[in-house]
Amino acid sequence: MRSSQYLLATMKENPADAEVISHKLMLRAGLVRRLASGLYTYLPTGVRTLRKVERIVREELNKAGAIEVLMPMVQNAELWQESGRWEQMDAELLRFQDRHQRDFVLGPTHEEVITDLIRREVTSYKQLPLNLYQIQTKFRDERRPRFGVMRAREFLMKDAYSFHLSQESLQQTYNAMYQAYSNIFTRLGLDFRAVLADSGAIGGSVSHEFHVLASSGEDAIAFSDSSDYAANVEMAAALPPQGERPAPSQSLTKISTPNAGSVEDVAASLKVTPAQIAKTLIVRGSTEDGEDSGFVALVLRGDHQLNALKAEKHPRVAQPLTFATDAEIEALTGAQPGSIGPVGLEIPLVVDHSAAHLSDFVCGANQNEHHLTGVNWLRDIADFETSDLRNVVSGDASPCGQGVLEIRRGIEVGHIFQLGDKYSQAMKAGVLNEEGKNQILTMGCYGIGVSRIMAAAIEQNHDEHGIIWPDAIAPFQIAIIPMNMHKSVRIQQAAEQLYQQLTEAGFEVLFDDRKERPGVMFADMELMGIPHQIVIGERNLDQQQVEYKHRRSGDKSLLPLDQVLTEMQSKLQSA
Amino acid sequence: MRSSQYLLATMKENPADAEVISHKLMLRAGLVRRLASGLYTYLPTGVRTLRKVERIVREELNKAGAIEVLMPMVQNAELWQESGRWEQMDAELLRFQDRHQRDFVLGPTHEEVITDLIRREVTSYKQLPLNLYQIQTKFRDERRPRFGVMRAREFLMKDAYSFHLSQESLQQTYNAMYQAYSNIFTRLGLDFRAVLADSGAIGGSVSHEFHVLASSGEDAIAFSDSSDYAANVEMAAALPPQGERPAPSQSLTKISTPNAGSVEDVAASLKVTPAQIAKTLIVRGSTEDGEDSGFVALVLRGDHQLNALKAEKHPRVAQPLTFATDAEIEALTGAQPGSIGPVGLEIPLVVDHSAAHLSDFVCGANQNEHHLTGVNWLRDIADFETSDLRNVVSGDASPCGQGVLEIRRGIEVGHIFQLGDKYSQAMKAGVLNEEGKNQILTMGCYGIGVSRIMAAAIEQNHDEHGIIWPDAIAPFQIAIIPMNMHKSVRIQQAAEQLYQQLTEAGFEVLFDDRKERPGVMFADMELMGIPHQIVIGERNLDQQQVEYKHRRSGDKSLLPLDQVLTEMQSKLQSA
Repeated sequence: MRSSQYLLATMKENPADAEVISHKLMLRAGLVRRLASGLYTYLPTGVRTLRKVERIVREELNKAGAIEVLMPMVQNAELWQESGRWEQMDAELLRFQDRHQRDFVLGPTHEEVITDLIRREVTSYKQLPLNLYQIQTKFRDERRPRFGVMRAREFLMKDAYSFHLSQESLQQTYNAMYQAYSNIFTRLGLDFRAVLADSGAIGGSVSHEFHVLASSGEDAIAFSDSSDYAANVEMAAALPPQGERPAPSQSLTKISTPNAGSVEDVAASLKVTPAQIAKTLIVRGSTEDGEDSGFVALVLRGDHQLNALKAEKHPRVAQPLTFATDAEIEALTGAQPGSIGPVGLEIPLVVDHSAAHLSDFVCGANQNEHHLTGVNWLRDIADFETSDLRNVVSGDASPCGQGVLEIRRGIEVGHIFQLGDKYSQAMKAGVLNEEGKNQILTMGCYGIGVSRIMAAAIEQNHDEHGIIWPDAIAPFQIAIIPMNMHKSVRIQQAAEQLYQQLTEAGFEVLFDDRKERPGVMFADMELMGIPHQIVIGERNLDQQQVEYKHRRSGDKSLLPLDQVLTEMQSKLQSA
Repeated sequence: MRSSQYLLATMKENPADAEVISHKLMLRAGLVRRLASGLYTYLPTGVRTLRKVERIVREELNKAGAIEVLMPMVQNAELWQESGRWEQMDAELLRFQDRHQRDFVLGPTHEEVITDLIRREVTSYKQLPLNLYQIQTKFRDERRPRFGVMRAREFLMKDAYSFHLSQESLQQTYNAMYQAYSNIFTRLGLDFRAVLADSGAIGGSVSHEFHVLASSGEDAIAFSDSSDYAANVEMAAALPPQGERPAPSQSLTKISTPNAGSVEDVAASLKVTPAQIAKTLIVRGSTEDGEDSGFVALVLRGDHQLNALKAEKHPRVAQPLTFATDAEIEALTGAQPGSIGPVGLEIPLVVDHSAAHLSDFVCGANQNEHHLTGVNWLRDIADFETSDLRNVVSGDASPCGQGVLEIRRGIEVGHIFQLGDKYSQAMKAGVLNEEGKNQILTMGCYGIGVSRIMAAAIEQNHDEHGIIWPDAIAPFQIAIIPMNMHKSVRIQQAAEQLYQQLTEAGFEVLFDDRKERPGVMFADMELMGIPHQIVIGERNLDQQQVEYKHRRSGDKSLLPLDQVLTEMQSKLQSA
């Protein structure tokens, strides 16, 4: 491709309205343009990368035995009413009427359509399992679209749905998709983690998210430094500390702590670390039958954070997690929230493992502006139980038993679920099983944000000059940058010859034949992140040489003109 | 692909609600399923063909220098208000509001979005010409969606838009696209014609439609039997008959024609052919300034049909074409419409060339239930002018000067337009030209109905057993049909071996490994139109042979097992 015949659309200035680096760089490098809030046009350079991502996704899914279909974006409301999502979903589900005043939606996902298809087409166990996917435009009417294509309203997604008669069969396909996703992100050249996830609103039980690691990521991921283990921070178990709790060595003492309302204040005031303080949270309790049981106190170490998901799962704690009001706390303990503690509290105590490992610790005295020091479990507080109530932190032992946890941020680009029968039950999708009886299907669903991958790849791969594309998804593999070509016939000839040679060999080459200063061309090719750059200048040409520059490493070297082709072939072999 | 692991979805019965053969066969062969009116899911077999069409379209457009982009399907109303189409288009344009009550449309085409993009991104003549395309889902809220994907509401389209500073540059790109379209339909393996077309509602001047010829086509196409000339019947010029008009030989005679109201009645009553009768139509006239000028009579041969487009272009005829009412005709001529004629009529006469070539002809006498015979121009009607007013018919001389016209029916699958400045003017899309002055752009636009091509290909290529796919767009190239494989280890081994061999050689093979009777398998493979079929049976296997069947010709032959691969390679080389 010649720049002069292409819509390069690079921008020198940083766009004012872009919040994250990938959004800025996608605008500046000429990948996308905003049409309206959350709606983007992919420019030629953006489409080139998008199609490469799409191709890799398609190839790996085909290899994994998934079969491609294509479902409508516009879907009739009846199916959504049948599944219940017509009522359940908020304004994110875009509803509209056609010319005959019939209700439709713009599909944000396709569970209803595919389940309807399968209940009509698949009647016998012999036709199962089936795993169908599509690569299709989707629409979610986000309240606050932002970060460019990262959280757009219209976006390109690969969604797959599998149908089974047994959990075992679902697990097999789930494993195959897990492997396919790993292959996809590996081929894309991205640093990623498959993490155990909470399956959220879509329902079902087992699920993994695939995250591209990037410091700007929205999600915190905990992973072992010595194994494959990775989980959303919310999902990672915090193991009880090793060893025995140290024996008490201090006596219980009440100390005045005026104006010390927070853990930090108390720590500063008493000259201890937050890790030596136990903080107490009062929440509503529940009986085993789900009846209200009054209040429960949750106790954590001062430097730890409550994990609401874990707390809610505790049988003594009411769902949803409901904190006591200040007035309720004062009525119960006689003190304001900043001065409460477990000593003498006559409600059930659930203590996080780490807090339960403390001795000689500090806590509120249940008297305003007073704390206790030298507190010890059993000696001062007889009755309590222990549980995992907190978020893991960096350095915690990994729950897998190997290594310690690191915490990094990630951008979710894929998600696989074991859906179970949520949709098949609601929509009565069953087949005759081997015994000739109707059996409701078990489902899995598997998503990849195709357009989101572009943004995530940039968040992970960029520097101050622009994007650093992995070879596999670079819009062009090679840039030819002839310096002052329009003033030199030699340079023009060398450039044209090289362009022809590399193009004929099958490489995707951007030949920057614009009448621009070399500085402008260098900056644009860096900004666009073309991985391999060939600079043609007078001085090197005297020696029949050109300069090669590798975008990622920044390494430069001289190459004999007649070895450029073989050199590129060896560098790009693996892509 | 193994049938047992695939969603074959073939149907034995003819679906009741399908009106045209392509719709029936697309349902029966498992290509599509209806979700709601005008909304279809593409099943795996349909997607395979769809993606092949898409690939050929993309490759040829890239070769022609067009550059791929991807624009949103959801578009904000402001752009449509700017171009005027928000008001101009009827309910076919689906309008809706987002969660913030802002107006949007689902894009039926993308002129507004691309023109907006170009006016922002292209500022200098140096960046032109540009030709941008996308392959994207579109939506038209048709009042009566029908014929399956042929006239669906949601459909897949390739649309391209080019931008120029001169008509000459537009013509160059137009020619390149004409050639690209010809290459595309040739590669698809379809019998097609590029026809001169009326550009209809989109505006602009020059345009060509690409039609797949099929007897079920909606449009009539006239084309020369000796040249490339082809045009919509409405657009083809009817040349004046060759030679002199025969001299009068009969005298003018008035004859009573009771109950003869139509041309056919009169012909039967007077024992002449419709070609010997002149019929007269009264329409409103116009002055050169477009003022109403009273009435004008149009005279055609009884066997010819008025072409409204041609009539409207005549300077004496008012636009839009408006026929006189029966009362007006009676007031003007003294007779009812079935008995009027040019003799003695005191309004301007415009006579079609063929009617003007008649002598001794028959026409109405301007007296109820009376006709004149032996009528002759000049002798009996002094004042008239001649023009081309009729649709061409089969056997007419071709307007190109070579051969005679044939008329066949076609299905429009592509359309190229020289749009001019309709959108660029309305949306003020201009650039600085070489003189440094702002100049409004000239545009072309180019569409291909990607999903429609599938249906059109089937309308053209089928027989009583099902679809006959051209090699290039067949969902699978080869079918392996092992007879009673589940009872014979030999057959199973031979089939598995062949499947592996052909798949590894890169062929797309459907291996019908279902536990079905051979008859069911034969019927399904014929229905699906797999071009090359290998049948493995006990008797032939005794001779180390299999049966090869060519779907299109129906030819069968025996092939040695060890030559199947080379035979397939030679047959499918060109695909």
